[in-house]
Amino acid sequence: MKAIILSIGDELVLGQTVDTNSAWLSQHLAGVGCDIVAHMTVGDEQKAIEQAIEESVGRCDALVISGGIGPTDDDLTRQALAGVMQAPLELNQAWLDHMSTYFTRLDRKMPPSNNIQAMIPRGATMIWNHHGTAAGIDAMFQSGDQKTTCHVFVMPGVPREMKGMFTRDVLPHIQKASGGAAIVSRTLHTFGLGESTVAERLGELMKRGRNPSVGTTVAGGVVSLRINARSASPTEAEAQADETAAACQGVLGDIICGSGEETLPTVIAKMLREHAGEVDPASKKTHLTIATAESCTGGLLAKLLTDIPGSSAYFTQGWVTYSNRAKYERLGVNEEVINVYGAVSEPVVEAMARSARRLAKSDFALAISGVAGPDGGTETKPVGTVCIALASKKSGSTARGDDRYIESDVIPRTFHLPGDREMMRLRSAFMALTMLRFHLLGRPLPF
Amino acid sequence: MKAIILSIGDELVLGQTVDTNSAWLSQHLAGVGCDIVAHMTVGDEQKAIEQAIEESVGRCDALVISGGIGPTDDDLTRQALAGVMQAPLELNQAWLDHMSTYFTRLDRKMPPSNNIQAMIPRGATMIWNHHGTAAGIDAMFQSGDQKTTCHVFVMPGVPREMKGMFTRDVLPHIQKASGGAAIVSRTLHTFGLGESTVAERLGELMKRGRNPSVGTTVAGGVVSLRINARSASPTEAEAQADETAAACQGVLGDIICGSGEETLPTVIAKMLREHAGEVDPASKKTHLTIATAESCTGGLLAKLLTDIPGSSAYFTQGWVTYSNRAKYERLGVNEEVINVYGAVSEPVVEAMARSARRLAKSDFALAISGVAGPDGGTETKPVGTVCIALASKKSGSTARGDDRYIESDVIPRTFHLPGDREMMRLRSAFMALTMLRFHLLGRPLPF
Repeated sequence: MKAIILSIGDELVLGQTVDTNSAWLSQHLAGVGCDIVAHMTVGDEQKAIEQAIEESVGRCDALVISGGIGPTDDDLTRQALAGVMQAPLELNQAWLDHMSTYFTRLDRKMPPSNNIQAMIPRGATMIWNHHGTAAGIDAMFQSGDQKTTCHVFVMPGVPREMKGMFTRDVLPHIQKASGGAAIVSRTLHTFGLGESTVAERLGELMKRGRNPSVGTTVAGGVVSLRINARSASPTEAEAQADETAAACQGVLGDIICGSGEETLPTVIAKMLREHAGEVDPASKKTHLTIATAESCTGGLLAKLLTDIPGSSAYFTQGWVTYSNRAKYERLGVNEEVINVYGAVSEPVVEAMARSARRLAKSDFALAISGVAGPDGGTETKPVGTVCIALASKKSGSTARGDDRYIESDVIPRTFHLPGDREMMRLRSAFMALTMLRFHLLGRPLPF
Repeated sequence: MKAIILSIGDELVLGQTVDTNSAWLSQHLAGVGCDIVAHMTVGDEQKAIEQAIEESVGRCDALVISGGIGPTDDDLTRQALAGVMQAPLELNQAWLDHMSTYFTRLDRKMPPSNNIQAMIPRGATMIWNHHGTAAGIDAMFQSGDQKTTCHVFVMPGVPREMKGMFTRDVLPHIQKASGGAAIVSRTLHTFGLGESTVAERLGELMKRGRNPSVGTTVAGGVVSLRINARSASPTEAEAQADETAAACQGVLGDIICGSGEETLPTVIAKMLREHAGEVDPASKKTHLTIATAESCTGGLLAKLLTDIPGSSAYFTQGWVTYSNRAKYERLGVNEEVINVYGAVSEPVVEAMARSARRLAKSDFALAISGVAGPDGGTETKPVGTVCIALASKKSGSTARGDDRYIESDVIPRTFHLPGDREMMRLRSAFMALTMLRFHLLGRPLPF
């Protein structure tokens, strides 16, 4: 199964936007065994788009197009496709109605320019867009002698809209048509070790030419392993992929914090919600709760915890105590402690975590204070220094009800995390979640 | 002057690496007036590379190739170019000597595989690589009838090596041949109106074929205008770009919230830091401060404000009061108000903003409570409903010192924002910043 990826947009050919769609699409197409013949990019010109479509349909079994189906005059992909198909554009009433409802719900009148988004070439099928007004197009091309066909898919250029549409309504078609050889992928995520250390531990498992192959990628401090098993039989590929995943797990152990679509926050959310451990009999709670007290991460940890639908089950509140005065007034961190040890110190995060747990009456509290930079570093506390504390139930405590939160056991830790301000803040929040994760696993932090 | 950019590499067509070279090259080629016809990417296959070169040379005046000139067996660009030129590969003794010296200096023996890097097609010129062993190739193609020529440049795929070679030995040739035409770009950002509404207001300014051209792109709820001015004279292009930017500003007014690298948070940061308005004479503050009280955004607003280095100048603290109890215990929001109006209501965000300003002793406080979904929507408050309140100094108040924060003027607003949970939360935070922005501008919110 041969595929060509075509991206449309002046912002792409002018270099104002880096095309990330093509790489993403390639990964997913290769994952179902497609051979990607080429990426092509042309600007918002109807003739150029027509030429690119015309040349591509004869060379591949699937042509995957993104971009150029917005509501404005420079969106010309649908017109170009209709031109190549020699078919008129026809109104799709269902999508027009859907768009009208969408605007009505937003208390807005639909601008007339949006009408074009309900037009598709005769003979083509509309693809529903669950995230916006740009519906996709699904069309089948046949060569003159009817011997070869090319399945053309047009999707929006906005990555999130494109990804949703591709996963739901494009990939299944291609996967089905590609039949034969299967590539089965598994992704495992790790946090806390560098890419080269992870690679070193995996050793022979990462050897080139091995099937299944194991590769690493890094994003936002998370080192992920991508396992690709290739076999004529999908069942066999599945079994091989699982076997290699188990081997990686055997080598890396708890360093692996999730798989597939899981993220550190979703893993923590699941652990808190499903925790079947000791719960105070007086309360009716069937899950554990967490509160946050943040300085350098400025709300990022709370944001990550509440990214997840239903997070109110385990997250009730958080403090962003950015200034020293806020640390004192909100969380009672003694000003003398700040003066003696500094705002970025284990005594300060200990006090923050302790107060946050007591005030929020939560099972756990995480506190973070660090030097995110680019300024503010000193010789003893350079940029990248971060102190994190986890407060939890006092061991051996017999307190009941709200009294359980008055005293806490607190574990403070200091880390030196690499990266610029954005990366350092993200790693700090992830490290805090990792401390909680190991605590919930009942194991010491392995680094 | 028409240009095509061709990238070579399996890692690109497999999606393992995002192609950033093409965007970089496009920017620089457009900067000297080139019209970029297309980007193309093919894998490490000689036939595919030959076909791509063959098709491109007839369509452009300059073909800029990167990748596939390393020392390994899967580097096939030089062989493909020689194939299309129907010219044998010949040894360039100067480059072979240079490579030998390079390896000797590293105390290493040059592997025999590197020999191929000194081979170029007969009739072509070698381009010196100051950062590695992959020399470039400069070749001239003539059409059969000798009427059109295409200048082909082959460079390494490694961005650092490519950029050095391009700037030094490729761009000057193209600039000279293009006769000095220049493209100058400007970017303006808007928030609050949909893409189609922005386009409608811009009207004729977005007409195709206009110079300077005006196009729109959307990312994270922000609709950006890209203005490209093309002229033989760079100074004239600058003037035309500025004139069109002013015309867009004239039509859209305060809807434009920033330009170039600016974001809504950096604009707010600048306004708060540089605000030269009325400041209490008792305090030494030369800037304004903001506090946050968040429910549905769960810390995102505080995170956006503290993304910026030096944010402690204007941001001191924030609350994430996710549960109703937290709204009551931390910010004193009357439980009866929550019961009567609901947690997502103007009275609730009013109370949150008022308390946050009083407790934080900040000039402003922003409070957000909404239905982020996917669950929790009702008929009267569907997913996407968000209430935002801005608390500021009580007008006419003569209070001094900390007493200034006891009473506030509060503006509450309700919005219906589109998108999934992630997008709705981002738009809510941006809308809160937009309310503050218009308040600082001294103008009513225009939507």
